[in-house]
Order: sequence, then C-alpha cells, then structure tokens
Amino acid sequence: MKEIILIDKIKKMVGGPAKGLIEGIGDDCAVLEYSADKYLLWGADMLVQGTHFTSEAGLENIGWKAVAVNISDIAAMGGVPKFITVSLGLPDKDTSRAVNGLYKGIKKICGIFGVRVVGGDLNRSEKLVIDVNIIGEVERKRLVKRSGARPGDVILVTGPIRNGKKDHLRFMPRVKESRYLVGNYSVSSMMDTSDGIGPDLNRICRASGAGARIHAACVPLSDGTPLEDALYYGESFELIFTMPPRDANELLLNTCGRGNGCFYVIGEITAPGDGVTVKMPGGRTAGLKTKGFCHLS
Amino acid sequence: MKEIILIDKIKKMVGGPAKGLIEGIGDDCAVLEYSADKYLLWGADMLVQGTHFTSEAGLENIGWKAVAVNISDIAAMGGVPKFITVSLGLPDKDTSRAVNGLYKGIKKICGIFGVRVVGGDLNRSEKLVIDVNIIGEVERKRLVKRSGARPGDVILVTGPIRNGKKDHLRFMPRVKESRYLVGNYSVSSMMDTSDGIGPDLNRICRASGAGARIHAACVPLSDGTPLEDALYYGESFELIFTMPPRDANELLLNTCGRGNGCFYVIGEITAPGDGVTVKMPGGRTAGLKTKGFCHLS
Repeated sequence: MKEIILIDKIKKMVGGPAKGLIEGIGDDCAVLEYSADKYLLWGADMLVQGTHFTSEAGLENIGWKAVAVNISDIAAMGGVPKFITVSLGLPDKDTSRAVNGLYKGIKKICGIFGVRVVGGDLNRSEKLVIDVNIIGEVERKRLVKRSGARPGDVILVTGPIRNGKKDHLRFMPRVKESRYLVGNYSVSSMMDTSDGIGPDLNRICRASGAGARIHAACVPLSDGTPLEDALYYGESFELIFTMPPRDANELLLNTCGRGNGCFYVIGEITAPGDGVTVKMPGGRTAGLKTKGFCHLS
Repeated sequence: MKEIILIDKIKKMVGGPAKGLIEGIGDDCAVLEYSADKYLLWGADMLVQGTHFTSEAGLENIGWKAVAVNISDIAAMGGVPKFITVSLGLPDKDTSRAVNGLYKGIKKICGIFGVRVVGGDLNRSEKLVIDVNIIGEVERKRLVKRSGARPGDVILVTGPIRNGKKDHLRFMPRVKESRYLVGNYSVSSMMDTSDGIGPDLNRICRASGAGARIHAACVPLSDGTPLEDALYYGESFELIFTMPPRDANELLLNTCGRGNGCFYVIGEITAPGDGVTVKMPGGRTAGLKTKGFCHLS
C-alpha cells in the first residue's frame, strides 16, 4: 500500500524524538506534552474534490465531513476535541457561496461537539480543497495508541459498519463511545475504521507487533453493507479497539440496551507469527489484506 | 478586499469566546492557553499550485516556502516555532518523487529552526497542494498581537523589503529578530509583510483602532524592488511592527552593526481619524490602500 510506504519514508526523513513530543507521525494524532495530567492531541485530514467527494456531494455535507474525520481522529486516541483550523482552496467562481455552504456544515458539527474554529487560510484553487487540523486533549492515563494490542486481547468495534460507498459524508464521530471506553475500561489499542477493517487492523497489528484473527460472521453490518466492503472499503468511521477479555466481558454486560452505546466483539489478537487473518462464514480462514480504500494510487 | 470580507464573515459565523482560547480568527496565529507562563501559538498556511507557485518553482523551494510562511506567522506573534503538520495533495504521477523533493526543502528549513514534523495527511489531487499547520510557544508577557499599536508609536520593519515578484520562495523567517525584539523592548503590535506594507499596515490599524503615516523615502528596498511593489505586492516576509519612540530609539542605537539584525523606522502611528497614508518621495501625501497581493479574487 503506497500510502504506508510513503508515510514510513517521511517518518524516516523527518521523524525521531524531540523535546515535548510523545508520539509523532504514525498514529491518528500526534501527542504533545501539555499539562501535568493531560496530553495535547493534534490531527490533520485533508479532503480534495475528485478524490474524496464529487461536486454533487453538497457543500454542507463536505464541510461536515471535513470536520468529522478530524474529530474521529481525536476519538481514536481517547480524547476530547477542542479547536480546529480550516484551510480552504476555493474555485474562483462564487467563493462566497462556497464559504457559506461549507461553514453551514462546519458550524453544525462544531456545535454538536463543542469545537471552535480558531484560524485557517483562504486560497484560490482550481478544485475545492479543505484541510482541517484539530487539537484536542486527553488525560495522560486515558491516552490510547495503536501500539498496545497484546495476544489474548479481544477485538471490538463501536457499531455496525456502515456502507461507506453509499453514505460517507454525514457520519457521527464516536467521541461519546470513546470517552465512555477510556473512562471505564482498559483499552489497549484503538483507531478509526477509515480505510476498512482489513487495512486498519493490519496497522494496529503492525504497531503492536501482534497478529489477529477476525470472525467474519461476527462483524456487524448496517443496511446491507457487503462484508467485502466492511473489510476493505472503509469510510465508515466506527472505532476498532482491543481490550483484555475481562474488560470486554464487563463492557458487553454493561452496555447493550443501557444507553452507553453498543459494542461488538469481532475477533482476537494473536501471536505475531500468526499473521492477520479472517475466518470466513463458510469456515475457511484467509489472510486479511492491507489493501483497501487508499487516497493515493 | 475580498479575503478580509470573507474572514470577517467566517469570524461572525463561528468566532466568539471559548474556554482556553485567548485569540481566535484574525491574527497571524490563534493563541491558546498553555501553561502558567506560556501561550500556545497555532498558525495555518496553504500553498496551491497555480495560485502561489508555478510548476517551475522546484519542489524543494515549494517545501521550503510552505514551512517558511508558517514559521513567519509564529515570528509575527513573538514566538518560537516547535512542531508542524504537513498535509499534501499530490498529482497522481510520480508521488514518490514529489514527496522526496518537497521534503528536501521541508527538512532543511526545519533543521535550521529546530522544528519537527509530527503529522499530516497524504492525498491525491490534480494540482499540488501543501497545507502546513504550525504550533509554537511564547511567554505570556512577550506575546505581540496586531491590535496594540497606539498613536505616537513608531513603525519599523526588520529589513529591506525584497522583491516578492522575483524571489518569494527561499526566504528566511525573522524568528531571531522577533525574539530579540520581544525579549528586550516593548513591541506594541507586529505582523509579517506577506501582502505588502499597504494591506498589512491597514490590518494593524484596523485591529488597533489607529491611523498611520508611512514615509515612502524611509522604506528600505532591497535589490531594486520598486516602491509600488513594497507597498502593494508583498511576499517579502519581513516583520512590520510598532513600538513607543523611546524603545525605537534604544533599538536603533543597540542594533545596526552589532549583530542583532538591522531595523528601519518607516513611519508613525497616528490618531484613528487620520486614516492610513503614505508621504510620497515628492512630498505629496496619498492614501495607503488595502489593495495588494490577494490569494482570492
């Protein structure tokens, strides 16, 4: 997957430790020193017309999604979103209408999550580009990275995997679910399923030095989402996370039907040598590939 | 100027006070609460192929500039740059070469200023887009905003205004000069001259509720830069700042030829009713307009 190779290359060129830096390139957010008991989380996600959305998507929906994917990155680390910057590349025609439309969606989702726009940039561009950066905070003890999954941990998701091909714009980031999880249980790793369970779980296993086995029959699918798309298409933005079996059991007993969200066990973390696999409904076990929705060719 | 109107509109839609927010939309950086004695500074600047650079600019130079304009935003508030995120929109062809080229420049300037890349995003895009966000810090007592200029203050610049039309890519942000200024003098307002002295000084006067008079003959020009371009073209990235006359005199006595940079007095802040004017070399006084290099039509 080209994106992973390029990110590794960039990390090699400019990564490495620095004063005040807890985690740099390679997770959903960078983690910076902040206060005695909190870290600062910093994420960045760009949407480009033609790659992430078509001109039919509707400006309000695009504004919503550009912020939602960033809030989702903060949720993936266990944090609370706080502030965003919005940098826009706007086609020459009717810039004022574009700003109005985009900000209609931005304002709505920011209102729901208590997020404030504090800056950004405005530019001319042939195609519409919207790059949002987000800052959030997380209690030090509640930070969850991709790298903490251990053999024996249970793999869960925060809800049925939606059909990202049909509806990828107007989703609700899982901040409430994330905060409930990190506030009450031991979550060993977490990320959002932006690229599909296949590539995303492979990232967790790579960062954690572990293997994993998914049970396809246990993957919850909403409104007729094909299993193949849940595994390899993405754009669903549920959280995928791991926890020790005892925590997982307690979570299931405490949640479904009790208003704390509904969580689904979909597999387990295994030894690194086992690779990342999926047990298909017929019983056959296959490799769970890293291929998936990729924003670079 | 369309950009100012749009920014005002956005500020109206999503601005307003928030917990932890000192300054939002409208200065070179947002200012956030950080520690007992420091603020966090957060800037964002996007470059788009066709608007900010042509395909002949050279990838290394584009990478350099994308970071330099952001470091300059931190310098404009009196701060020290620390971390950046880099979000790229890359044409399909030869993404690996583009990343290599851009990061050659990014790495160089980050090395000079002790700045670390901690995150970002990679995407496909028809035209090259590079959006950098920067975080820096500043001692609370050293923060300089655009809004502090007072009648009687002297207006200065950090160096000769370069010809932004000829060479706008490989400039050196004025962090050293800024830190020297805020560490030793009372600086009442500051910003970088990214759009030309005309529009930029008008912004300071608007934020400060003051007027200003520039003496054109005093504006230092490097390598044959036409006065008109210094006033209205921009892309020079010197700092323009104001200070009480006593501080200005002390600064001039302490600096030129002493390795602390070289600063130039170019005018004075006046009462708000006086407007923003320029005394031309022939003696005529003209309005100093807000027009200038604008990244939106």
